[in-house]
Amino acid sequence: MTALRGQVVKMYSRLLGSSTKRQYATIPKFVDILVNENTGVATLSINRPPVNSLNLDLIRDLNNSFKELEKSQCQGVILTSTLPSVFSAGLDITELYNPDIKRFEALWDSLQDLWITLYGLSLPTAAAINGASPAGGCLLAISCDYRVFVEGKGRLGLNETSLGLIVPKWLHDTMTNIIGHRHSEISLLRGSLYSPAEALKIGLVDELASNKEDAIGKCENYIESFAKIPLSAILATKQQSRKATISWLEENRNSDLKRFVESALQPHVQKGLGAYIQSLKKK
Amino acid sequence: MTALRGQVVKMYSRLLGSSTKRQYATIPKFVDILVNENTGVATLSINRPPVNSLNLDLIRDLNNSFKELEKSQCQGVILTSTLPSVFSAGLDITELYNPDIKRFEALWDSLQDLWITLYGLSLPTAAAINGASPAGGCLLAISCDYRVFVEGKGRLGLNETSLGLIVPKWLHDTMTNIIGHRHSEISLLRGSLYSPAEALKIGLVDELASNKEDAIGKCENYIESFAKIPLSAILATKQQSRKATISWLEENRNSDLKRFVESALQPHVQKGLGAYIQSLKKK
Amino acid sequence: MTALRGQVVKMYSRLLGSSTKRQYATIPKFVDILVNENTGVATLSINRPPVNSLNLDLIRDLNNSFKELEKSQCQGVILTSTLPSVFSAGLDITELYNPDIKRFEALWDSLQDLWITLYGLSLPTAAAINGASPAGGCLLAISCDYRVFVEGKGRLGLNETSLGLIVPKWLHDTMTNIIGHRHSEISLLRGSLYSPAEALKIGLVDELASNKEDAIGKCENYIESFAKIPLSAILATKQQSRKATISWLEENRNSDLKRFVESALQPHVQKGLGAYIQSLKKK
Repeated sequence: MTALRGQVVKMYSRLLGSSTKRQYATIPKFVDILVNENTGVATLSINRPPVNSLNLDLIRDLNNSFKELEKSQCQGVILTSTLPSVFSAGLDITELYNPDIKRFEALWDSLQDLWITLYGLSLPTAAAINGASPAGGCLLAISCDYRVFVEGKGRLGLNETSLGLIVPKWLHDTMTNIIGHRHSEISLLRGSLYSPAEALKIGLVDELASNKEDAIGKCENYIESFAKIPLSAILATKQQSRKATISWLEENRNSDLKRFVESALQPHVQKGLGAYIQSLKKK
Repeated sequence: MTALRGQVVKMYSRLLGSSTKRQYATIPKFVDILVNENTGVATLSINRPPVNSLNLDLIRDLNNSFKELEKSQCQGVILTSTLPSVFSAGLDITELYNPDIKRFEALWDSLQDLWITLYGLSLPTAAAINGASPAGGCLLAISCDYRVFVEGKGRLGLNETSLGLIVPKWLHDTMTNIIGHRHSEISLLRGSLYSPAEALKIGLVDELASNKEDAIGKCENYIESFAKIPLSAILATKQQSRKATISWLEENRNSDLKRFVESALQPHVQKGLGAYIQSLKKK
Repeated sequence: MTALRGQVVKMYSRLLGSSTKRQYATIPKFVDILVNENTGVATLSINRPPVNSLNLDLIRDLNNSFKELEKSQCQGVILTSTLPSVFSAGLDITELYNPDIKRFEALWDSLQDLWITLYGLSLPTAAAINGASPAGGCLLAISCDYRVFVEGKGRLGLNETSLGLIVPKWLHDTMTNIIGHRHSEISLLRGSLYSPAEALKIGLVDELASNKEDAIGKCENYIESFAKIPLSAILATKQQSRKATISWLEENRNSDLKRFVESALQPHVQKGLGAYIQSLKKK
């Protein structure tokens, strides 16, 4: 396995064979991609220090990278982070506070795109959650097919209500698909963040790992368990399982966007975001 | 905390502040309300001896009380019973046997109202189930957000089929939302009544308690866990989680009413109800 | 209990009483039926050696037998196999390889009929799974209300993707109704086959048994637990629980048929089926 930052095109070309002339429109800036040439498993590492917060560029990088990997016919994708103790802190909160509305709408629009791509990806996907993963970080993790959570101080969950924000229906449904109606409802109401042991107990993650390497290994095992399954059967089954959830967003993108923007612009939410940003600056 | 039977107006006024002139249209007859002035948590105790069976007056008292508490902006509501070993025995069976049809329809109509109010309440709700809670008693418990069941001889479940009655779709769906399709189906088919340990195991309740005081304390902890969550976010999340279930009834109230009335009036059901009432009289 | 192969008519007549003149149009060829005259519990044993694979005749036998038992007002039906280590190997794979299209379509059409009959049956149903039960074998087991799995080397699951086939939506939904969205999705993606202990753990079966006799006994206990529940209440509750799942197929029979036929006729699927048949012949 070779580190490939800025070398994605080369590696893809090798994977795709010499007959492939296709060039990538954009080189991802905040995402590193490694492809194991023996197994065909791609590892996509989010790399936007200090906390991998999701701004417009990172979201687009992720969306483009998943789409390219899908075309490359690799065996599957592992999503992880280059940081030692954070998977992703979620949406970049500075984008939500006193936002430029056009930019804010573009951010949400790109997040919708990313989720539709990832949740519907025609490849097996697994998240190696190597640290804190609240809100939008949890979104990324639960939109993969399989989750391995590194034991430690990291917490995983959709804690939007603690900032007065509302989890959108498609993300709520994604959570419900994994942990069921009851756990999903109470965790979203409370904005619960789960420890690795708690996340395993309620089925929010599939396995625990002692460290990132262990987590990557378990994700590889998951993806390799599909080695003999035709990709067409995987895709058709995944679509059948997730079609209702994805279709809802495809048919309600505008109202979903308006609802989130309105909820984020409420004065008490803006005030809370401001206070939160101040508290982060003091740290 | 002060006992408030017949003093609801005073306590509410205190909660709402001196500027509030609103008077209550009706003082509940079969429901006691306590509000903890420190925490803002309201405790609503059903008080219709001997078994808290749900007649038209009690159902309306409950509906009105929940609506008033919702307007009062208290922190949340605990539902319990004043009786030592019964939470609620469910619908007053004497109302179902040889019924006056108009009165029967009014009963079901009011039950629909109560469920719509309680299941959609914009406050955190918790049931301290301090004893037997079959059928309509279980309806009240599972329409709250959280359930604590006192260990002992009390049983909890939707046992309608044992009398030949059919659980309405909205109540079936409420059960499914909590314990999933499989457990809901089999428990409704069999009319299962669960012990506290069994109820905990299948997720029908969230915690057990050694006695009523312990149960109330655990319900308070649940509600206080929302102290920092804006009520608007709680309401929006709860609506998102329950909208499909509630909308069904709102759109099918008449057919739901007709179906229950018809099923209850079947000769074999009436005969069973008559035999059941006789057996109760002998006790 | 008496063995009844070829004597179904007589036994039914006895059950139905002497006033019943109805004659059966067809005597099942691949299905044995026993009715316990004390309990009214019918045991339907699939008997098509060597592996109870589902061809057109067996599927029709099963459908007709379930319909006759439903009319006979017996107390419930146990589905099992006469073979020592196989419940059912699923669809007869020789029917899928280089198929005559008309015959293939008739096969799928009859399978749709069978599932609609069994999943909607107005009697309690239980499967005593006494051995291997992949794909269509699993379909039969999960379309019953209750499952007891004999401990041993038998495996249970929907492993269609391992042959490149796609589980139809109605069967996918049946699985989801039992084990939830998450387990259903991952098991169908991977084509997982579960051991008895694994199947119990995820709720795919309700009980384990040490041998077939034990499994039959546990299924009888399940059915007898309904002795006091009116059949009308069982039927109404089951319909309410399963209506959405069954209605989908009733409204989409043609597209469901076309989709399965097309997926099975893909060259890589046909090639896989051919290789599989060769491997079976060598055994």
